[in-house]
Amino acid sequence: MTICALSTPSGMGGIAVVRISGPDAISACARIFRPHKSDHSLDHRKTHTLTFGWIVNPATGEELDEVVVSLFRAPHSYTGEDVVEITCHGSLYIQQELLHLLIGQCGVRMAEGGEFTRRAFANGRMDLSQAEAVADLIASQNAAAHRLAFSQMKGSVSQKLDGLHDQLLRLSSLLELELDFSEEDVEFADRTELLDTARQIDAEVVHLSDTFRTGQAIRNGIPVAIIGETNVGKSTLLNQLLGDERAIVSDVHGTTRDVIEDTILLDGQLIRFIDTAGIRDTSDRVETMGIERTYQRLERAQIVLWLIDGTRLADADSTQRCIHDTLDVYRRIVPYLRDQQLLLVINKIDLIPSDTLHANLPLLQHALDEAGLPPNQTDEAGLPPRQGDRGGLLLLSAKHSQGLDQLRKVLVRATRLQQAQGDVILTNQRHYEAMQEAHQALLHVIDGLQSHLSGDLVAEDLHAVIDALNSVLGRSITSQDTLNNIFKNFCVGK
Amino acid sequence: MTICALSTPSGMGGIAVVRISGPDAISACARIFRPHKSDHSLDHRKTHTLTFGWIVNPATGEELDEVVVSLFRAPHSYTGEDVVEITCHGSLYIQQELLHLLIGQCGVRMAEGGEFTRRAFANGRMDLSQAEAVADLIASQNAAAHRLAFSQMKGSVSQKLDGLHDQLLRLSSLLELELDFSEEDVEFADRTELLDTARQIDAEVVHLSDTFRTGQAIRNGIPVAIIGETNVGKSTLLNQLLGDERAIVSDVHGTTRDVIEDTILLDGQLIRFIDTAGIRDTSDRVETMGIERTYQRLERAQIVLWLIDGTRLADADSTQRCIHDTLDVYRRIVPYLRDQQLLLVINKIDLIPSDTLHANLPLLQHALDEAGLPPNQTDEAGLPPRQGDRGGLLLLSAKHSQGLDQLRKVLVRATRLQQAQGDVILTNQRHYEAMQEAHQALLHVIDGLQSHLSGDLVAEDLHAVIDALNSVLGRSITSQDTLNNIFKNFCVGK
Repeated sequence: MTICALSTPSGMGGIAVVRISGPDAISACARIFRPHKSDHSLDHRKTHTLTFGWIVNPATGEELDEVVVSLFRAPHSYTGEDVVEITCHGSLYIQQELLHLLIGQCGVRMAEGGEFTRRAFANGRMDLSQAEAVADLIASQNAAAHRLAFSQMKGSVSQKLDGLHDQLLRLSSLLELELDFSEEDVEFADRTELLDTARQIDAEVVHLSDTFRTGQAIRNGIPVAIIGETNVGKSTLLNQLLGDERAIVSDVHGTTRDVIEDTILLDGQLIRFIDTAGIRDTSDRVETMGIERTYQRLERAQIVLWLIDGTRLADADSTQRCIHDTLDVYRRIVPYLRDQQLLLVINKIDLIPSDTLHANLPLLQHALDEAGLPPNQTDEAGLPPRQGDRGGLLLLSAKHSQGLDQLRKVLVRATRLQQAQGDVILTNQRHYEAMQEAHQALLHVIDGLQSHLSGDLVAEDLHAVIDALNSVLGRSITSQDTLNNIFKNFCVGK
Repeated sequence: MTICALSTPSGMGGIAVVRISGPDAISACARIFRPHKSDHSLDHRKTHTLTFGWIVNPATGEELDEVVVSLFRAPHSYTGEDVVEITCHGSLYIQQELLHLLIGQCGVRMAEGGEFTRRAFANGRMDLSQAEAVADLIASQNAAAHRLAFSQMKGSVSQKLDGLHDQLLRLSSLLELELDFSEEDVEFADRTELLDTARQIDAEVVHLSDTFRTGQAIRNGIPVAIIGETNVGKSTLLNQLLGDERAIVSDVHGTTRDVIEDTILLDGQLIRFIDTAGIRDTSDRVETMGIERTYQRLERAQIVLWLIDGTRLADADSTQRCIHDTLDVYRRIVPYLRDQQLLLVINKIDLIPSDTLHANLPLLQHALDEAGLPPNQTDEAGLPPRQGDRGGLLLLSAKHSQGLDQLRKVLVRATRLQQAQGDVILTNQRHYEAMQEAHQALLHVIDGLQSHLSGDLVAEDLHAVIDALNSVLGRSITSQDTLNNIFKNFCVGK
C-alpha cells in the first residue's frame, strides 16, 4: 500500500514537502502531476532527479500549485521503496488539498506516525535501534542530546551490541562443544574460560545499563541540586542562573518549601536546576516535608551545588559556628551522597571585606578536609585539585552576579565529567529494559556455570541473553504491538 | 551575495529545508557537505539532481546530519541563480545549526523576507504582480482566495495589463502621427477614434478597479449582514451558522448592541457574518448607536440576510401588523441598499402550524412585491425566480437547525454571483491604487482629446497611464523603498 503525509512542520511557510512512499508512489503522483516539459513524465524520469511542473486535479482539470517533484526509485530511498516528494508552496490550503488529491484521487492512504521509518526498518534500511534514534534526533533540542541521537542513528548502539553478540555466539559454541561431549558423560574439567567470558560480557552489559542514567540526564537535563542552610541565597542564585524570577525570594528563613525545577542550556548541555528547601532543624511540619524532599532530590542529583553564607566568616567566633553548622549539614546529607559531584560555593562575598574572608576561609577549608569532604573538582581536566588547594572553592555574590561566569564554567566542566567521550550511551527505556533482561539471564548463565549445571540448561539462558540483545536491534521477531508502540511516538511524515 | 534561509515552516517536523541562492550557492554548500558517494561532489553534479550525504562542520569535523541536497543550476531555478536546497531532519537544533554553519563558515548571509522571490523578480523570472501573488498564495487559506492568488501568480493580472498596454501604445502612436502633422498646423479633423479607444481603455481600467472590492471580499470573507427587527432570532441564527456561542442570546429585545463578526468556510468560500442590532424605534441611546452601526455595516455588506419572525403570521391581524412593520424596516434600510443581494428569511417556523404559515405567507409576499422588494435570487443559475414565485422565500427554524442546509446552499450560490468566472480580480492595494492613478490620467487624456488640447500635452497624460500600468508589473524603474515595502510582508525563506 502506498502512503503519503506532510513531512515538513505543520503551519504556513515558504515551501512544504509532501512525501509519498510505496510501490505506486510514482504512478500515483503522475496522476496529478503535469511536468513543465512534456518529455518529463515521472514514469520515465531517473532516480534522484528533480522535475518542475503543476499539480492538477484530474477530476476538474483545475491547477492547484506549481511544484518540484523529487524522485527516489527503490531501493535507493529512505524507505527502500519508490519515494516521491512533492515540494509545494507552503500555504495551509495547498498542503491540505494536495493530501486530499493524493488520498481521494490517487489511491494513496495517509501514513501513520513514523510509518516511513517503520518501512525503512522493515526493508532493512536500518535496524530498530537506529529507527528509534530518528525520533530522538528530531526531538533533540541541544547539542548533547543531538550528539547522542545522531550517533545512535548512525549505529553506535548497533555496533556495541553486535560486538556483544559475537562474544555470546562464541560462548554458545563453546557450550555446544561441551554438549557434544556430554553423552560421553565427561564434563569439561575447566569451565573457567566460559565463566570468564560470561562475566566479561555481563560487565559490559551492566556498564551499558548504567549509561542509561547519563543518557536520561542528557536528554532531560543534568540534574543539579542547589542546597545549603536557610537564607544562604539559593533562590537568588537560581534566579540569576535562569535569568528570571522563578523562585520567591525573601529574607524570611525557610521561604522555599517546594522544590522548583528549571533548565538552562550551558554550552549545548541542558542543565536542570533543582532549588531546595534550606537544611535546618525546624518544628514547622510543612518545612520539614520540604527538607525531606530536598534529601530525595539530592539523592537523584548528579551535581550538588552547596552554598555557604560568606558573611558568617566575618570573625573567628562566627567562623567557628559556621564550621559547626556546615559539618552538621554534611552529616545530614552524607547518607544521600553516592557518586554526585559536590561543589562548595561561598556566597554573599559582597557583604564581607575581602581580607577578612581570606583570613577565615582556610579555617573552614581545613575543617572540611578533616571531615573528609571531597574537594571541588574544578580542574580543566576534571582532576582533583592540587594538595592544599580546595580546587578554587568558589567565591560568589549571587545578588551582584559576581563569580557567576566562573560558576557556569565549573558547571560545564562538571557536566562533561558525567559523560565519558566516545562512550555508547543508552537513552531509550526499551533498550535499558532489554539490557536489564540480558543482565538477569547472564546472572543465570554465570550461576549455572558455577554450579556445574548441565550445558543445555545454561544454553537456554544464553539464548535468552541473545534474544534480549536482538530485540533492541529488531532482529528477533518483533511483535506488532511492540512496533506500534515504538512508532506511535513518531511524528507523521517521518 | 549568496543568501540562505529556512524555507519550511518553523517548528519541529519530519524534515526541514534550508534554501541557498546566489553565485556561491553550490561552492558554499560543498564546504559543509560530504556526499555518500565520493564521486558525487556537488561541483560536478548536474542541475536538477538529488545527492545524499552528510553535513559536516569543517572546523570540528563533527557530523551534524544526514541530508539530501537538491541542486538547481542558474538560470533553471526559482531565483534564476544557482540554488541549493538542503533537506535535513526537522529538529530545531539541526535547523538552527545548519544555518549557523552556512553563515559562520561558508560566507553566506541570512536572507531577508521575500528575498528569494525578489531575486526571481530582479532576474526576470516573474513580474512584480506575480511576485506579489506568491505571498498571497502562501497566505491564502481557502479555495476562493487560493484561486485568485494562483491565477495572479500565473500572470492573469500581467496578461490583462499587457492587453491594455498594447492598446495604450496604439493610442500613443496615433497621437504621434497627429503630432508629425501638427507642424503643418493641420489638426486631424476627427479625434473620434482616439477618443473611443481612450474611453474603452478607461472602461476596462474602471472595471478592473471595481473588482478590487470583490477581491478584498474574497480575501477577507464576503460580508453577509444579518438584519431584522429585534427578537427575530438573528443571534441564534449566527450561532447556528458558526456552530459556536459567539453572540449573547436572550429573550430581551435589543440584546445585540455591538456588531459581532465571524467567518465560516462554505464550499471553499470565506463568508464573514455581521450580526447587527435589531432595527426598531428606540429611546435607548446606546441601542440607537447600535442601530446606526447596523446601517453602516449594511452599506458595506454584499449580501443581506433579512430575518422575519414567522410567528407573526399566526393570524390575519398579526400578519397585517407584520407586513406593516416589515415595510417600515424596508423604508429604513432602502437608503443604504446599493447592489447588495437581499435574502428574505422567515424564521421560527417551528412555532407556527405549517398550514397557518402557508395561508398567510402569500399576503406578506404580495405586499413585498407591491413595495418593489427584489425577490430572493435562489435559482441554481442565479437567475431571478419565475413569476409568482418569490424565489423560494426561505423558511427557517434557526433554533432547531431546520432549513439551515438550504440557507447554506443559497448563501453559496449568492457568493458565487459576486464573482464572475474567469474574470481578472484585483486583490492588491498597490495595484488598485495604480489603477486609480491610471483612471485619473485617462480622464485627463479624454478631457484633452475632447477639448482639442495639443497632442503633446495629451501624450504626457497618456504616458502617465502607461507608467501606472508598468508600475504594477515592475517594468518602470521601481524605487527600492517600494520594493522593500512589497517584500517585507513575505516570510523569510520564500
